[in-house]
Amino acid sequence: MCNFLFLLALGVPQASETLTSSGVFLLQMGWGDLGAFGEPSKETPNLDQMAAEGMLFLDFYTANPLCSPSRAALLTGRLPVRNGFYTTNGHARNAYTPQDIVGGIPDSELLLPELLKKAGYINKIIGKWHLGHRPQFHPLKHGFDEWFGSPNCHFGPYDSRERPNIPVYRDWEMVGRYYEDFKIDLKTGEANLTQLYLQEALDFISKQQASQQPFFLYWAIDATHAPVYASKQFLGTSQRGLYGDAVREIDDSVGKILNHLQQLGISENTFVFFTSDNGAALISAPKQGGSNGPFLCGKQTTFEGGMREPAIAWWPGHIPAGGVSHQLGSVMDLFSTSLSLAGLQPPSDRQIDGIDLLPVILQGKLIDRPIFYYRGNELMAVRAGLYKAHYWTWSNSWEEHSKGIDFCPGQSVSGVTTHTQEEHTYLPLLFHLGRDPGEKFPLSFASEEYQQAVERISGLVQQHRATLVPGQPQLNVCDQAVMNWSPPGCEKLGKCLKAPESDPKKCSWPH
Amino acid sequence: MCNFLFLLALGVPQASETLTSSGVFLLQMGWGDLGAFGEPSKETPNLDQMAAEGMLFLDFYTANPLCSPSRAALLTGRLPVRNGFYTTNGHARNAYTPQDIVGGIPDSELLLPELLKKAGYINKIIGKWHLGHRPQFHPLKHGFDEWFGSPNCHFGPYDSRERPNIPVYRDWEMVGRYYEDFKIDLKTGEANLTQLYLQEALDFISKQQASQQPFFLYWAIDATHAPVYASKQFLGTSQRGLYGDAVREIDDSVGKILNHLQQLGISENTFVFFTSDNGAALISAPKQGGSNGPFLCGKQTTFEGGMREPAIAWWPGHIPAGGVSHQLGSVMDLFSTSLSLAGLQPPSDRQIDGIDLLPVILQGKLIDRPIFYYRGNELMAVRAGLYKAHYWTWSNSWEEHSKGIDFCPGQSVSGVTTHTQEEHTYLPLLFHLGRDPGEKFPLSFASEEYQQAVERISGLVQQHRATLVPGQPQLNVCDQAVMNWSPPGCEKLGKCLKAPESDPKKCSWPH
Repeated sequence: MCNFLFLLALGVPQASETLTSSGVFLLQMGWGDLGAFGEPSKETPNLDQMAAEGMLFLDFYTANPLCSPSRAALLTGRLPVRNGFYTTNGHARNAYTPQDIVGGIPDSELLLPELLKKAGYINKIIGKWHLGHRPQFHPLKHGFDEWFGSPNCHFGPYDSRERPNIPVYRDWEMVGRYYEDFKIDLKTGEANLTQLYLQEALDFISKQQASQQPFFLYWAIDATHAPVYASKQFLGTSQRGLYGDAVREIDDSVGKILNHLQQLGISENTFVFFTSDNGAALISAPKQGGSNGPFLCGKQTTFEGGMREPAIAWWPGHIPAGGVSHQLGSVMDLFSTSLSLAGLQPPSDRQIDGIDLLPVILQGKLIDRPIFYYRGNELMAVRAGLYKAHYWTWSNSWEEHSKGIDFCPGQSVSGVTTHTQEEHTYLPLLFHLGRDPGEKFPLSFASEEYQQAVERISGLVQQHRATLVPGQPQLNVCDQAVMNWSPPGCEKLGKCLKAPESDPKKCSWPH
Repeated sequence: MCNFLFLLALGVPQASETLTSSGVFLLQMGWGDLGAFGEPSKETPNLDQMAAEGMLFLDFYTANPLCSPSRAALLTGRLPVRNGFYTTNGHARNAYTPQDIVGGIPDSELLLPELLKKAGYINKIIGKWHLGHRPQFHPLKHGFDEWFGSPNCHFGPYDSRERPNIPVYRDWEMVGRYYEDFKIDLKTGEANLTQLYLQEALDFISKQQASQQPFFLYWAIDATHAPVYASKQFLGTSQRGLYGDAVREIDDSVGKILNHLQQLGISENTFVFFTSDNGAALISAPKQGGSNGPFLCGKQTTFEGGMREPAIAWWPGHIPAGGVSHQLGSVMDLFSTSLSLAGLQPPSDRQIDGIDLLPVILQGKLIDRPIFYYRGNELMAVRAGLYKAHYWTWSNSWEEHSKGIDFCPGQSVSGVTTHTQEEHTYLPLLFHLGRDPGEKFPLSFASEEYQQAVERISGLVQQHRATLVPGQPQLNVCDQAVMNWSPPGCEKLGKCLKAPESDPKKCSWPH
């Protein structure tokens, strides 16, 4: 039987006892954070090895320069403006799922694990969910079979009066809280969470291999997200400081996971993809922030530094070693690609933005498709081929900037990294990302090259806008009452807290 | 017999018929221009392969952020402030050898080929010499046996009245001039010079192999120096535009040269080093300028973008494949390393700044040594370990900057990329290049880390300054009469021009 059903084969193992599995690594890291992508301290031997054995994507994008919307896009294959992971509280404002958010992933969305489940997959998420923390948004209600991790970011510590510490779940119930039961030392940066997440991954893989069940593992760790942390054995080991320590621990973990797959003899049956949910947060640099290599700005922006991501596909025996692809890729493609590997069809009742990358990965094809750069409710920029047109520019407001909040530290391109929202709808700013990957030299409006490229891109925009049906925005309303006061399982632990009265209001999204 | 005399063995081949040879590639390219260093279009498969088979240096420096002084430093193993390749016409001004320069490499300097000659080497320079073009500075008077290339930059075309076109030499005599006999089409960027230089290299290597003579080949090409050029077959083939076309042609040439060594069976007897004489000239970006990856600014500055260079050592069978070194290295080390390979001692009557890198390359050792960043006559900055202290900062003057001359386009770090020369002697600006490779976040003066690091670096500076004997500055005087009016051999070609009367004056160095 054809082994093409590699990743997401239906039901039980094939006659050949092929185990068909998939793993996605997702974390907050910049394009320039890996040795294979030119990080000058070159401290990621395992990821570099993964790249050498697999395929490196140099033009791979997230769907949004912020965590929650990107993750929602990955799991639904749809832009945040469709799946509801955006806000209309302000123009072009980024929004995510802090613990006072009321919204989350709508039931109407079909998530990758829900679809894979029908094909017999056991799905596990390890790490940060970030698609809403109220009961109806729980990952096990959206296709995952297992979960170990947290619903929100590991911010804290909180005082349990104004704000409870974020819970950590095992499956349906919480098993403790960050800073209380799962320590993060903000002074030293020590926390053993990555080790816990690693062990979870290894155990899950072993279990699936033993039971010969195909699996989908979504390893969504967050050690490189501020507050950055690393285990004791990695603290102080990097040239890059605490952030580098965290990267090294993740690199080590990836090596151990890939090695585990090989030891168990299932590496040729496991499609693994490594990428990030947004660019490095330069606002946290250098202590807690990574590198976007030669690209402009970082997280929160629709410049390349905010949305171009490191990406590696690994599947020994199928993907030729050492491959390099210039395919314009998106995290949303992982949705479509996984379905394709499973022999499943994507849902036909809705627009799917992801494309099937298998022809790219297995046959080296290049598929012509645009990349849309959204910030909240606004289409800020579009890339087609090597051209990128900005229809709106801004980094953040003067007000924020004057307080020292800087998404582009050390970088300033006049008229480009603007601190007011500037519209360029009628004369978009155009860059050639081959000659000018750093978006520093807008093409002359008068040039023929400009006119040809903009004409093409504007056609794509028109088509996109004409067919766009925005989803109900999920990230508009906040309410202290919905915070993690009494998550399921809190009673057993004596960790239930009293919620304040409900007082829903518009969330404030400053940038 | 021990094969340790690999590179520069004395006299004729050993009993084992070992041919001991060396090649240095030197060109104007930025740290971030190679795929192996994270260039996002990854168009250098041959150089990346060279790195995979050899050792990648991530912390390798040139001796000056400008061409002539760097090349003089490489060939003498000495800082430009010692060998005379600097100016005292203005404080901290860069200077080089345009065709009206009066000075050049002093006879008192001992060049690498002069020393190797004594050990039986045949030495050839292909490409740009740049150590002075008046008769006494001719490369064949300084140890080279053969030359094909030009004494100065390929600027032009000139009108032969105000300024003659730069000659191209074969050995002692000119064989034509740029733009006249060696075409460079400034409109299309077409020129077949790299192909000529490639063929010269292949022929020279073949000849040396046939005669079993050890050789030193210095392949100092200049296609990536503005005006950037490429051969017809490479024009339009790069994502990166003309600059990328030139890089691709160089990459292809390097591949052909390494392949030739392998075909001839002498790759294991040939130590090859690839590096650059200064960072990418961002002032020429994006059309004619490369990338310095994550580093600050470019050519002309003493920020990392101006002086940290791509560097690869290749020596199959000796250097373990895939090695990566964090050794602080310098182009001046190529002088000392080559002598060491030849079993020769460096001259003992003068200060040599280069160190022998063999323990690093062959045994993976790390040698503690500082890097001094000079701009003209001023020590601007010093690196020790991961710390870099700036004693002076400036990019260029406000006057130049206001005319659009920008060495840091899109980059601006307050108080760092200054447009006045700012002295920090008593409180140097300190950066940790591991956590902050982009030199964007100066350490707090009050921190213990600052005090410890600056104390150490200041000790190194004191020691360096106390023993420094500056050479007679060679780049102070310019005179139209010394231009390439009638280079040797011009009579045979009918290409002699009449020189104007001598009118020496101080050269003007704007930055």
